[in-house]
Amino acid sequence: MDNDLAPALKSALRNLVRSVVVVTAQVDGQPFAMAATAVSEVSMDPPSMLVCINRNAAIFQAIDAGSDLMLNVLSADHEAVSRACGGGVRGGERFAIGHWQEAAEGRPPFLRDACAVIHLQQANVVDHGSHRVVIGDVLSVTLPSALPPLAYFDGRYVQVAA
Amino acid sequence: MDNDLAPALKSALRNLVRSVVVVTAQVDGQPFAMAATAVSEVSMDPPSMLVCINRNAAIFQAIDAGSDLMLNVLSADHEAVSRACGGGVRGGERFAIGHWQEAAEGRPPFLRDACAVIHLQQANVVDHGSHRVVIGDVLSVTLPSALPPLAYFDGRYVQVAA
Repeated sequence: MDNDLAPALKSALRNLVRSVVVVTAQVDGQPFAMAATAVSEVSMDPPSMLVCINRNAAIFQAIDAGSDLMLNVLSADHEAVSRACGGGVRGGERFAIGHWQEAAEGRPPFLRDACAVIHLQQANVVDHGSHRVVIGDVLSVTLPSALPPLAYFDGRYVQVAA
Repeated sequence: MDNDLAPALKSALRNLVRSVVVVTAQVDGQPFAMAATAVSEVSMDPPSMLVCINRNAAIFQAIDAGSDLMLNVLSADHEAVSRACGGGVRGGERFAIGHWQEAAEGRPPFLRDACAVIHLQQANVVDHGSHRVVIGDVLSVTLPSALPPLAYFDGRYVQVAA
């Protein structure tokens, strides 16, 4: 394999504009949160989404145990949440930043003021290299905030304008 | 299943900011192009990306036959290409809009002035509902244009600003 491919791909990915999503999961009463941009819709039949998770990430233990997932689409007000869940803060302390609704039975924590909160039940997984692609069927959708979403492009947070 | 989930998920997806990517593939000398937003990075080890394709889309016949894929990340100048490949134009006529490099053996067509062109070899697939998730390993990456990418949000094209 060409050793230059990974840096070249990283350069290409800097050209992609993306929303920032914080994924949450839980296992044995312990909640996890991680910022992700590798999130996509899959199908409307059935309504489903996917997220790619590094198998070395802390949240992976919950995902590997089959936890439901919450996809929290961050608003323009959520830069601090994004930084905390992107590595700025460790473990359960991440939930001290932002307006989190704590976990309930069968439902990981979610951000009470996210642009969108999508509850997923795992339906299909495929491992590829360092990551697991988790496909989840949608159990519920809420749209708590009318603020524009937080967007990320070229290594920084950006705003969108028509 | 809750019949309201698909429209609710569509509303949530309007909150996602995304780049527009045109996926190309070929089979038996016939090229196909389709605009997509369901595109994500998977891993850097190995460098890989995924795209979700409706199994009723014309391009699916090439993908199902194992074609390599090209991911063309559109620039702010490519609205006409996006509209053509998003359904405005049918079949091979799509390649009349934009600066396309025609297909070669083992290499589908690509946009000569895309922000990024990522050549993928299919590595793993999983079908879920109406769609196929295709994971491809990166064979090459080029970054032809320095223009900002075309972004899509809330049903319209937008620009990004720091």
